[in-house]
Amino acid sequence: MSLETIVDFFVAYQRTAAIKAAVELDLFTAIGEGRDTTTALAARCQAAERGVRILCDYLTVVGLLHKDGRRYALAPDAAAFLDRRSPAYAGSLVIAIAGETNLQAFAQLTAAVRRGGTALAAGGTLAPEHPVWVEFARAMIPGGAFLGPLLASFLEVGAGGRMQVLDIAAGHGLYGIAVAKANPAAEIVALDWPNVLAVAQGHAQEAGVAERYRTLPGSALTVQFGTGYHLVLLVHFHQDLDPGACERLLAKVHAALVPGGRAVALGFIPNDDRISPPTHAAFSLSMLATTPGGDAYTVTELDRMFRDAGFARTELRELAPTSERVMIAYRAQT
Amino acid sequence: MSLETIVDFFVAYQRTAAIKAAVELDLFTAIGEGRDTTTALAARCQAAERGVRILCDYLTVVGLLHKDGRRYALAPDAAAFLDRRSPAYAGSLVIAIAGETNLQAFAQLTAAVRRGGTALAAGGTLAPEHPVWVEFARAMIPGGAFLGPLLASFLEVGAGGRMQVLDIAAGHGLYGIAVAKANPAAEIVALDWPNVLAVAQGHAQEAGVAERYRTLPGSALTVQFGTGYHLVLLVHFHQDLDPGACERLLAKVHAALVPGGRAVALGFIPNDDRISPPTHAAFSLSMLATTPGGDAYTVTELDRMFRDAGFARTELRELAPTSERVMIAYRAQT
Repeated sequence: MSLETIVDFFVAYQRTAAIKAAVELDLFTAIGEGRDTTTALAARCQAAERGVRILCDYLTVVGLLHKDGRRYALAPDAAAFLDRRSPAYAGSLVIAIAGETNLQAFAQLTAAVRRGGTALAAGGTLAPEHPVWVEFARAMIPGGAFLGPLLASFLEVGAGGRMQVLDIAAGHGLYGIAVAKANPAAEIVALDWPNVLAVAQGHAQEAGVAERYRTLPGSALTVQFGTGYHLVLLVHFHQDLDPGACERLLAKVHAALVPGGRAVALGFIPNDDRISPPTHAAFSLSMLATTPGGDAYTVTELDRMFRDAGFARTELRELAPTSERVMIAYRAQT
Repeated sequence: MSLETIVDFFVAYQRTAAIKAAVELDLFTAIGEGRDTTTALAARCQAAERGVRILCDYLTVVGLLHKDGRRYALAPDAAAFLDRRSPAYAGSLVIAIAGETNLQAFAQLTAAVRRGGTALAAGGTLAPEHPVWVEFARAMIPGGAFLGPLLASFLEVGAGGRMQVLDIAAGHGLYGIAVAKANPAAEIVALDWPNVLAVAQGHAQEAGVAERYRTLPGSALTVQFGTGYHLVLLVHFHQDLDPGACERLLAKVHAALVPGGRAVALGFIPNDDRISPPTHAAFSLSMLATTPGGDAYTVTELDRMFRDAGFARTELRELAPTSERVMIAYRAQT
């Protein structure tokens, strides 16, 4: 038992600020390229040498860099995930997780706890066409680039033949696009705010699937989905909604599916104890801070909502080798 | 090697926000008092039950609470340091470490690294009579209440007989007051901004040493100290200054001391490698974020500044059982 444990919580925000500054300055890439002194790094990152020195020493203290004399090198995690030249580069995720809007939301967490929902103005990040979602779509590209193909393969969409797919809150679009790439007979309808869909369309173009890629601009809660879908993707989305809205959404999804069709919710789905697995359970706080009524719905809650919406059954799976969870809900065959 | 290590940095700010919200709501005290359900806690903390539930689950995930069914209890660290009824209560430190001004400063850390100093307006927290220092003085009371008597005893001031003491940047005043309590022949001069001195004077009154407690309002860099001091306290202060200002301050301190007098700098004093001990080294980033030119000066740098200012010698000590460091500088006997 020690006060240091507590003080570690008090200063934890500085860890986020330091890694975010280093990502924004592209400091890790500069070090990976072999610039290992504060002089060389300051020149490359267009920063003051004194600022670079203090930041590099801090990053050494917290284990992201090594220091030998006056020279810095990347620790293995930083080399794998924070050097822009690495195929596993994930630096931009810091903007998705600790961007301006999220920092503001968490700065008002006490007020959010008092009222039981975000203290951000006008519905928080769920306000129509909130600019955070374009930023978010761009920042989440590394996640989608890795998880999209993993999900497509997990769902065995390649074996599916002709397949209509609705990608709700498509963001960067990389989940639907991965399905289109895995199955040349798949047609994707991507739903999101118009400014976000521009990002997704760019990716569809790059992936060479643009002629099988349609967009449906608007709110998932109000826009008409149409019918005849074999697969509906709900990636990191249902959690943003309050229970009532979530149920209405799932009912719309059910109605849009063909018999035997699947809805797939990927995201944070904690166990019923609400405290495990840690990453899934902890995510609930982000929904409290940023949305009026969102939550990391538990396995039982989400299953119940799917079944109340008319689905015949659900199954919970982990997207190995990650700890991401997917709940697959099946519309009855008849 | 895993992306989770990196994502832990990205979400670290949420740990600070959660513990800060819980302190502000006095949630830990409420749980310590035996309110262990979200219903009882919501009533006691004047918060929404849903907000309390999500916050308590998060605090359980990060180890500050235990959860058994739907009932919460304090983990040992939380019971010792975050329940207001505990003699070691230190919850208010979160305001000193992660108050509004610090959060704003760290939100602009990238800009601070670029320019090599705070991106806050007008000198950052060193602007004259910056309101943060009153907040800081109040928030640091638990630290001063614990460390003040420890420092007084460490310096053996009880054996000192008649003793003039200058407490520079006195803040809550508890270091000088501890000297006054340990030595009935000590007279304290407390220097700080006028609004901060009001806090210190209140504490001197409470401690029954008001008639031996004088205040000297103003900036440590410009106000006249007078002479004849046997002891000058510099607690968590020199680090805020750029090297030039620090040297000018220490020269003024030297001139104010009697021959054989001591100046005592307590604070973050890293080793010359600038990466150890971790807490000391990491503090440099706070000075970059919040001040134009402050730094966690190393052992060698601080020793050199003291000697350049005229001091005969210095010694570095740790304030056991804490990891706080003090550098004691001696004015020559003749």
